Amino acid sequence: MRMNKHVFLLFVLALWSAAASHAQQNVSFREGNVVSPQVNEDHSVTFRLRAPKAGSVWVWGDWEADRGLGQMRRGADSVWTYTTPALPSEMYTYRFVVDGVAGLDPSNPFTRRDVGNVFSIFFVSGGCADYYQVRRVPHGTVSARWYPSEQLGLTRRLSVYTPPCYESNPDKRYPVLYLLHGSGGDENAWVELGNVARIMDNLIAEGKAEPMIVVMPNGNSSKEAAPGETSENLAYKPSMTNLIPGSYKNGRYEMAFPEIVAFIDNHYRTIPDKAHRALAGLSMGGFHTLYISVNHPDSFDYVGLFSAGLDMSSVDMSQPAYHDLDGKLQALQAAGYKLFWIAIGNEDFLYQANRDFCRRLDGLKFGYEYHESTRGHLWSNWRQYLLLFASRLFK
Amino acid sequence: MRMNKHVFLLFVLALWSAAASHAQQNVSFREGNVVSPQVNEDHSVTFRLRAPKAGSVWVWGDWEADRGLGQMRRGADSVWTYTTPALPSEMYTYRFVVDGVAGLDPSNPFTRRDVGNVFSIFFVSGGCADYYQVRRVPHGTVSARWYPSEQLGLTRRLSVYTPPCYESNPDKRYPVLYLLHGSGGDENAWVELGNVARIMDNLIAEGKAEPMIVVMPNGNSSKEAAPGETSENLAYKPSMTNLIPGSYKNGRYEMAFPEIVAFIDNHYRTIPDKAHRALAGLSMGGFHTLYISVNHPDSFDYVGLFSAGLDMSSVDMSQPAYHDLDGKLQALQAAGYKLFWIAIGNEDFLYQANRDFCRRLDGLKFGYEYHESTRGHLWSNWRQYLLLFASRLFK
Repeated sequence: MRMNKHVFLLFVLALWSAAASHAQQNVSFREGNVVSPQVNEDHSVTFRLRAPKAGSVWVWGDWEADRGLGQMRRGADSVWTYTTPALPSEMYTYRFVVDGVAGLDPSNPFTRRDVGNVFSIFFVSGGCADYYQVRRVPHGTVSARWYPSEQLGLTRRLSVYTPPCYESNPDKRYPVLYLLHGSGGDENAWVELGNVARIMDNLIAEGKAEPMIVVMPNGNSSKEAAPGETSENLAYKPSMTNLIPGSYKNGRYEMAFPEIVAFIDNHYRTIPDKAHRALAGLSMGGFHTLYISVNHPDSFDYVGLFSAGLDMSSVDMSQPAYHDLDGKLQALQAAGYKLFWIAIGNEDFLYQANRDFCRRLDGLKFGYEYHESTRGHLWSNWRQYLLLFASRLFK
Repeated sequence: MRMNKHVFLLFVLALWSAAASHAQQNVSFREGNVVSPQVNEDHSVTFRLRAPKAGSVWVWGDWEADRGLGQMRRGADSVWTYTTPALPSEMYTYRFVVDGVAGLDPSNPFTRRDVGNVFSIFFVSGGCADYYQVRRVPHGTVSARWYPSEQLGLTRRLSVYTPPCYESNPDKRYPVLYLLHGSGGDENAWVELGNVARIMDNLIAEGKAEPMIVVMPNGNSSKEAAPGETSENLAYKPSMTNLIPGSYKNGRYEMAFPEIVAFIDNHYRTIPDKAHRALAGLSMGGFHTLYISVNHPDSFDYVGLFSAGLDMSSVDMSQPAYHDLDGKLQALQAAGYKLFWIAIGNEDFLYQANRDFCRRLDGLKFGYEYHESTRGHLWSNWRQYLLLFASRLFK
């Protein structure tokens, strides 16, 4: 009862202070002293939520063990608890579902937005998640910057990572990786959910990746920026854009992509040639990557399709960007490239579409590398694909 | 019942899909079709939450009308509703409290973290909040960047806003505003809660502020960066630092501040003199601003104390940074300055400390401007103070 009282007391105190003085103050304490989540030594994770009046509480996350679902049990002090089996090293997202209402873990101030939902997060260290966290290594800069798109008729935002040595070597020029998000995502997705800055800092510090600039544009061609960052402000809410026919897969983004490359080459110390440019994207961004690379065959020596949205059934293949894919693939083949890398999880709902695409490439004798991971259409896979792909570039 | 079923169905679907295939997929839909918050034409705001099993639901926000507290009423489909009186134009933060458990509004994907808590947000347009939102005007760049602090023994992160014209005028040099956060805050606070980039973009577009660089350092001298962005990663949780004696008000940050100014002067096209530097801070950052300005009297021509933490009772005044304040104020007076601006809300818990400080300045015949607003220790005041202060600089 002690801690329960504590929460109640704080709420009453707030009511009282608001009532007594009429004076609001933004002095923000975190309530209570429940510890959640707690990553245990054996890599199991314990979740806790104080919810005195709840009838049922679930934890709902994106790990594989226990299918990402745990029915929490009420214990002393009305604290509900659940402990997962041991989890592989990763960054995980989760929410609590209390009597059917999904929400964050109030004991955990660390969150990420993924499309339309906000999730609590945690890391299980001791493996790939060590690359997703900040270490005491030199850090690059992440900038939110706007470029003018004549073709799309908008000033649009992109995120740019410059490597740690970029500023201290003012005469050095760098290769560029263009990294594209999925449907419902935006220019923040790879930064926030992909942990790009940490991954690149750590790979570069270990000598596993060349210092490179990473550019993360916004793939929603009708939008200026991420939801909340456009002139529509909060009226434009994040959603899966594939629910809005025509808002993507209309070819406009792919055809306008050279504007982004030109902007970056004009404003950063790049090595502005094909040998020093890579392009990769996840899901919808993998679809974009395919069509950008084949429509601009002299631009990128390295191409990565991460769980790419290669189901063409909803695509108008008569669009200039999309027509004659085989012919364009052969043109890319003739132009040459160093790496065409396809990665997919064996439980991804796009698995078959990716296997079919590989067969199509086989039929054309189009060279590629294929990486099959476990699991589904998940940020854990995309982060792990980036670790692998970034280590292969510009060497 | 229809919408209630819909939410339930999605949850069951998720359970079933996880159970059936064992395959997780990060495909994130927002549940349900409840609209919340809804800013009405008369500037009242309606909140809605579907919570079929809840016994009580409150909305708890930082507006003045109804004391920021509304008891929500259960209506059809188990949707709880509350409508505020008309609210002045501002950005507001709020949470729902369901049976004593505080959480976000699940229908609103837009959030901000303030110290240890995450809040849902909304804007009421038609006044100062128009400056806090994105308009179709030229946009500056916001960068998260690291500088080496020899005196503090850490590589530390800061946020830097460069104005829209910075990149297109590669020979032009700019004045700099250094803008400091409060206790429990970090280098993200002014960007996220202060909406600095939008405020500066909009003021500059209207010709109300000179184009300037804005630098937002981290004022927790023992830390590298914001919680989650240091090498402690999620083990360092945000909290009110004034609960940790000695972690600030130890004078180290104030004495080391010239390192930040030197870093900015070395890495940006600044006008590196006193006439083109301003310094302002809120709450703890106002305390820091006072002591940085008096210890470095040749550095800043513009000084702004926003709801400054001027209660010296917990400060060891024998520290080199803090001793002989009157003497240092007289030295600053002798060195000269253009604006020493003190702003405080008439309901702020620091009101009396600020009034006492003004009397101290009066005793020294130290010139200053005093701006008294309504209300308490609130981000709404700090944003409004920034609108006023930034418009006064470098003219």
